[in-house]
Amino acid sequence: MKFLKTISVEEFKNILNSISKIVTDEELVSLEDSFNRIISRDLPSNINVPHFRKSRMDGYAVIAEDTFGAEEDNLIELELIETIQAGDIPQKELNKGQCSYVATGAAIPENSNGIVMVEFSDKQENNVLISNAITPGTHVIEIGHDVKKGDVIVKKNTLIDLATIGILASCGIKEVSVYKKPIVSLISTGNELVSQDIKELDIGKIYDINSIVLKKAIENTGVQVNFLGVVKDEYEDLKNSMDNVLENSDIIILSGGTSKGEGDLGPRVLEDYNDIEILIHGVKIKPGKPMIFAKLKKKLLFILPGYPTSALSCFYVFIDNFLRKMSGYPLRERFSKEIEVGERIYSTVGRHEFKAVKIQEVDGKKRIFPIKTGSEAISTMFYADGYIEIDELESIIERGDNRRVYFF
Amino acid sequence: MKFLKTISVEEFKNILNSISKIVTDEELVSLEDSFNRIISRDLPSNINVPHFRKSRMDGYAVIAEDTFGAEEDNLIELELIETIQAGDIPQKELNKGQCSYVATGAAIPENSNGIVMVEFSDKQENNVLISNAITPGTHVIEIGHDVKKGDVIVKKNTLIDLATIGILASCGIKEVSVYKKPIVSLISTGNELVSQDIKELDIGKIYDINSIVLKKAIENTGVQVNFLGVVKDEYEDLKNSMDNVLENSDIIILSGGTSKGEGDLGPRVLEDYNDIEILIHGVKIKPGKPMIFAKLKKKLLFILPGYPTSALSCFYVFIDNFLRKMSGYPLRERFSKEIEVGERIYSTVGRHEFKAVKIQEVDGKKRIFPIKTGSEAISTMFYADGYIEIDELESIIERGDNRRVYFF
Repeated sequence: MKFLKTISVEEFKNILNSISKIVTDEELVSLEDSFNRIISRDLPSNINVPHFRKSRMDGYAVIAEDTFGAEEDNLIELELIETIQAGDIPQKELNKGQCSYVATGAAIPENSNGIVMVEFSDKQENNVLISNAITPGTHVIEIGHDVKKGDVIVKKNTLIDLATIGILASCGIKEVSVYKKPIVSLISTGNELVSQDIKELDIGKIYDINSIVLKKAIENTGVQVNFLGVVKDEYEDLKNSMDNVLENSDIIILSGGTSKGEGDLGPRVLEDYNDIEILIHGVKIKPGKPMIFAKLKKKLLFILPGYPTSALSCFYVFIDNFLRKMSGYPLRERFSKEIEVGERIYSTVGRHEFKAVKIQEVDGKKRIFPIKTGSEAISTMFYADGYIEIDELESIIERGDNRRVYFF
Repeated sequence: MKFLKTISVEEFKNILNSISKIVTDEELVSLEDSFNRIISRDLPSNINVPHFRKSRMDGYAVIAEDTFGAEEDNLIELELIETIQAGDIPQKELNKGQCSYVATGAAIPENSNGIVMVEFSDKQENNVLISNAITPGTHVIEIGHDVKKGDVIVKKNTLIDLATIGILASCGIKEVSVYKKPIVSLISTGNELVSQDIKELDIGKIYDINSIVLKKAIENTGVQVNFLGVVKDEYEDLKNSMDNVLENSDIIILSGGTSKGEGDLGPRVLEDYNDIEILIHGVKIKPGKPMIFAKLKKKLLFILPGYPTSALSCFYVFIDNFLRKMSGYPLRERFSKEIEVGERIYSTVGRHEFKAVKIQEVDGKKRIFPIKTGSEAISTMFYADGYIEIDELESIIERGDNRRVYFF
């Protein structure tokens, strides 16, 4: 396996951006389950919406010409022949001098070409006095006003949001063809990792965090997670798991096993695949330097650092929106703000640092303070409000400087 | 029933803001299911994290004093007595002049008080040459560095995000006490509404949209939806449904049945409850004027307009974040931007209008255009990119004016 040189953040982003969206097969889902999915074919409507002429208002369906000349001091009397509520089928057609009461949304009788609003009427026994002249078409919703039969209502590759579900529902559509969610397999590696089912921890063992946290983070990007649990740091175990998931995944995310120590297995297992193309092996960032990104049998593979804080931070900064791009999910917009630094912050020269910070108010002003623990502690992430970026060449950020904080 | 006068948007917002968070009972959920829930009691850790002394780096665990004086041209030789991988239990304690290899995260042997990084070592057969002097404590993660046994890790009323799940997982916690989700019952009313299961629509009937769209929108606020489906516009039907859901809901949302026409049932049913307190009946907005907000048997009740575009628009503008406040869910931050108006826009004087608009590029510049259909058409919402707010007293917005667009 060819190990590439450590690359910059910019190069890393460029490589990720060069990967095109994964094209998955189609599947049919219920309209309700289609929320936030990508429609896989143009969808025409089989009906007009509405498919009958209806009233936009509560009022009286009339022949507009009958109302000409009506004013407050010149009431025109019409015979009331029917009351039509929403959902009713009109039973009578209008003749000259007649009207029918129509509720909002109700079908209007044949021959009617306008609605006089209730506000401009005075109902007598069997008659209605009209005080407002209307032009033909007033408050009538014509057939196909909303959607025309045969028109493509939703185009292929559209993200289905609530308004899209609304318009599909209005056309009576129950099921939608969408692209399948890309499958992301998640493997957590490490002999030290123990499930929360175990009550007493031996020396050397720690509870597994990445399985549950990364799984949740990945799920939130609109992909389907295939979770393999913790795999032992043994060549055969990891190789077998890899072989398995290569069959049925689009993307594989492995946490742990990326640094250069004797116990690190990820790169050794990758070495034994012929058709592997390592795109990235090492990024000049802190935390997350040993990250690996590769193409293997047409699948994409990430190896994230094992420390949960490093893994989650790399995930948020680089992989979250990458997976959303792959699934077609709405991208996460990261809220950020310039804030004054409240205490000197140190950084490692030669690495672009994503430094966890908290925001505290001092002397009535919000200021940035560094989190003192590092990526070895999950509490770092827990106590941080966000992060600041520190350039490769900066070693110190002075108190009083302004920095942009990216909030989690 | 006392009908109140139509109120302004500001008054409506103030009334909603005056409602305090619903306090629900507790329930125990798995750590994984606790995402975005509110923890209902202080949670202390039963263990130290880590519960053993471990190495932050790949390197050699040493007695720091043994390395004093080590430099590149003054290598100090130590006897290598053991290799400890992450997860291993150290078998040997160090004596003066000895060291053990330790992987990142591995437990370190007794008596060791510092780690020399691999980079500053040269491994021989059974010995290691050290080129770097370290002070006691270097690269050792002490017991309780991350979390101290007995310390409250997560305080009551905290929203559980991914980092919180991470820290709870690291303490071996499998289940968490959280507040139950408030139960929101949703009723769609209207004799004209028909399920998508029906293939052929009669005259007067339309497919029900609110059931599926509002249900989804409500679900997204972190509450539990109790969905009753479409209820007929008959007094007994609606009264029975209301009586039912009052028992087992915290909030009731009814769509349809709010305007003043003969067919409107919501207010008539409300009248017959003694213990009802109508807080709002009518807001000077378009769309959504007839909205009702009431307290009934200590439950909260909204009646939204029946037109799906009105209902969804009222929901987004007023109720979305209100429900999130009730459930403790993260509020929705609405993205907005000032853009130039590309075409004259008309509005009704006397109502604060939330006008659906689309953004189109004309002459290389993005501009605001009004959607020509109104709230009677679900396509209005579908084609809109967002909305602009138009003050009660404005009747015309001229082309060339700048307006803030709130994106959906």
